[in-house]
Amino acid sequence: MKVLIDVTLKEGIMDPQGNAVKDGLIKLGYDVNNVRIGKHIEIELKDLEINKAEKLVKEMCEKFLVNPVIETYTFRFEV
Amino acid sequence: MKVLIDVTLKEGIMDPQGNAVKDGLIKLGYDVNNVRIGKHIEIELKDLEINKAEKLVKEMCEKFLVNPVIETYTFRFEV
Repeated sequence: MKVLIDVTLKEGIMDPQGNAVKDGLIKLGYDVNNVRIGKHIEIELKDLEINKAEKLVKEMCEKFLVNPVIETYTFRFEV
Repeated sequence: MKVLIDVTLKEGIMDPQGNAVKDGLIKLGYDVNNVRIGKHIEIELKDLEINKAEKLVKEMCEKFLVNPVIETYTFRFEV
């Protein structure tokens, strides 16, 4: 099974990369209000029951993949 | 409306960052088969009909946000 994790900066945390992309889009003529850039992580796991897999993914995020001071995350499974 | 875009490296394109994260997870004792890392981009747009918004997002991806030689993308709306 595969898990797709999106890691985003918390609201209020500066995002210079997002601002640069916003400026680029505006210069190209696109009417965008805000851009935020985060990480998209795809992990192939061995097959597990969904509640065990959820627990495992949360643990990996909280121990290693996400900096909880400045980042937040969501995930979904693709079976 | 907000669009969430996931930009991933195409299959076959080397992903050293993904490999480093895979090694880190394995060292922590997690049984993962593969890890790929991409970008997660959130853009706030003014409200549009869904088909117009889809066309706009595809255009932004293909002109600016995605390198079509090595990357591919998916997107979804959050209204």
